[in-house]
Amino acid sequence: MNTNRSVVLRHRPQGTPRPTDFDIATSPMPTPGDGQFLVRIYYCSLDPATRRWMDEDSYGVAIPLNGAISCLIVGKVVTSHCTGFQRGDYVVGLGCVAEYAVMQPGIFTRVIDPSTSPSLTSHLGVLGAIGLTAYNGLLNVGKPKPGETVLVSGAAGAIGSLVGQIARIRGCKAVGIAGGKDKCAQLLDYYGFDEAVDYKNRNLQELTDAVRTACPAGVDVFFDNVGGLTLDAALDVINQNARIVECGMISQYNAVEPPLGPQNIWQVVAKTATMYGFLNRYYAEYFDEALADLSQWADEGRLKWREHIEEGIENFYPAFMRLFEGSNNGKLILKIAQPE
Amino acid sequence: MNTNRSVVLRHRPQGTPRPTDFDIATSPMPTPGDGQFLVRIYYCSLDPATRRWMDEDSYGVAIPLNGAISCLIVGKVVTSHCTGFQRGDYVVGLGCVAEYAVMQPGIFTRVIDPSTSPSLTSHLGVLGAIGLTAYNGLLNVGKPKPGETVLVSGAAGAIGSLVGQIARIRGCKAVGIAGGKDKCAQLLDYYGFDEAVDYKNRNLQELTDAVRTACPAGVDVFFDNVGGLTLDAALDVINQNARIVECGMISQYNAVEPPLGPQNIWQVVAKTATMYGFLNRYYAEYFDEALADLSQWADEGRLKWREHIEEGIENFYPAFMRLFEGSNNGKLILKIAQPE
Repeated sequence: MNTNRSVVLRHRPQGTPRPTDFDIATSPMPTPGDGQFLVRIYYCSLDPATRRWMDEDSYGVAIPLNGAISCLIVGKVVTSHCTGFQRGDYVVGLGCVAEYAVMQPGIFTRVIDPSTSPSLTSHLGVLGAIGLTAYNGLLNVGKPKPGETVLVSGAAGAIGSLVGQIARIRGCKAVGIAGGKDKCAQLLDYYGFDEAVDYKNRNLQELTDAVRTACPAGVDVFFDNVGGLTLDAALDVINQNARIVECGMISQYNAVEPPLGPQNIWQVVAKTATMYGFLNRYYAEYFDEALADLSQWADEGRLKWREHIEEGIENFYPAFMRLFEGSNNGKLILKIAQPE
Repeated sequence: MNTNRSVVLRHRPQGTPRPTDFDIATSPMPTPGDGQFLVRIYYCSLDPATRRWMDEDSYGVAIPLNGAISCLIVGKVVTSHCTGFQRGDYVVGLGCVAEYAVMQPGIFTRVIDPSTSPSLTSHLGVLGAIGLTAYNGLLNVGKPKPGETVLVSGAAGAIGSLVGQIARIRGCKAVGIAGGKDKCAQLLDYYGFDEAVDYKNRNLQELTDAVRTACPAGVDVFFDNVGGLTLDAALDVINQNARIVECGMISQYNAVEPPLGPQNIWQVVAKTATMYGFLNRYYAEYFDEALADLSQWADEGRLKWREHIEEGIENFYPAFMRLFEGSNNGKLILKIAQPE
């Protein structure tokens, strides 16, 4: 155990990532410095935001060329020079796609107790950054009132599926937009959305009409993970004083040319709507309260989730690409090693 | 005095308004009902928003086909069946482009005292809806802190020129975007902006570079009257947690095809910015306080403004079009009759 394998960024993707943008690098086992700890990685979280972190003009987490692909991980502390993290602790936090990583305290990094968790991987989903993003974005930014209509794009995704369920827990009507009949059926039958809209094979006018039909009272809160045409359709159906939570725009991440912007942006003025650019990391003050609610709802069976686990560090590329193909079903996770 | 002339909407403009979209109609003198009063109109306020009111899918004030063109007016009460408005009172409020109009109480409608006003027309500008829009949009929506950079588009316009001056009164750096060298010189020399950016003959990249040069510390509050390329350029220069006050998008109002949306909308997420659709009418609770401040600043000579007065109801069309040609210099007003 003297070497470590990690997935590194060889080229910044121009548009859709290619296999040659990544490489598996073997390097000497890293050594934690003061205030750091070394973690054996079991699971890596693969998320749309990771794509943005690969760009030159990234935000927040920026991946340097030839650096390892940053992501949230679950693993076990091997050695520690950091108070609060001991050898043998299970941890979740910001690491990278690798067998081992040196980590340090951060807002998403904490010790987890497998004996009181639904699973280790739940800390990469409902009980981790994904759950916190859905919770904070909906309740602390969108602030829907009971009876209001909450529209969610990417609704079958890890965040979107939680947003719809939390909306219903808070007494709202939940409408989801997803790609394909199977995903739409899942929204209704598994996650309990009130309405589902299939965006596939629809132009803007058809999508707008479908959203309007699904939301006869209009949209009060739009939680957007997708951008593009979906945002335009939603803008055409928002109510006065609507709140638009801009959590992500996955439809734009692989654009080579500057993407078309929302042609209905005027509706923000006409409807005196507010569009909030939302990054969960700025809502850390709410994390404890949010995790308590999410844990309780999960325990009570009021929140459902799915995981889609791919295996093997060498499968990073095809696994990651599933996010953009929409071919994952549930929270996408790459398993690096069997937990011990 | 048994007839009244008014400018009416014969066709909803498709794109840029044409002379034949309007007509001067002569009708019997209208009679005020209970709670209403008849006003002899002296001045009409011509504003970009009026163009939107002519559209089928308007917001707020919607002008019916063959109806008179709604606008704010200053005039004198001729007869009244409304408490608080007496024959001989000078009033400002929502009327129309006409010689006489029946009016009623509303949030913008009130009695004015010429003896304590800089001028009658000031109630259509700095001491009226224009001033209130600049004040509320900047201070109660954008909420700039001293030392922050406030960027304003349409900066030589009636609202924009006030926004920049109020920003400076509140200790901010004021940067204006306007069309042409003369207007930019006016921003610096007459209105006292810190920096001026000329948008004419510049593509998006050039405009973005010019805005960045004028705002080396980035943009904290962007007060947008223009939309389009200007919005895109601003989005590329906003700071983390920037506030975008969307007051109007005059560059889009005459579009026939759906306009291109802001291709940099992703920056709203990356910068956790907030884009507020802003309509002044929802901020009526602040009007008294705002008018007190605006009056005081005007009295102290800390607020400057210009008026561009065209004359004659028959000149409505060429006068109105100046807003879109950018050929007015100051608050555009149509004089209907000499005040008595």
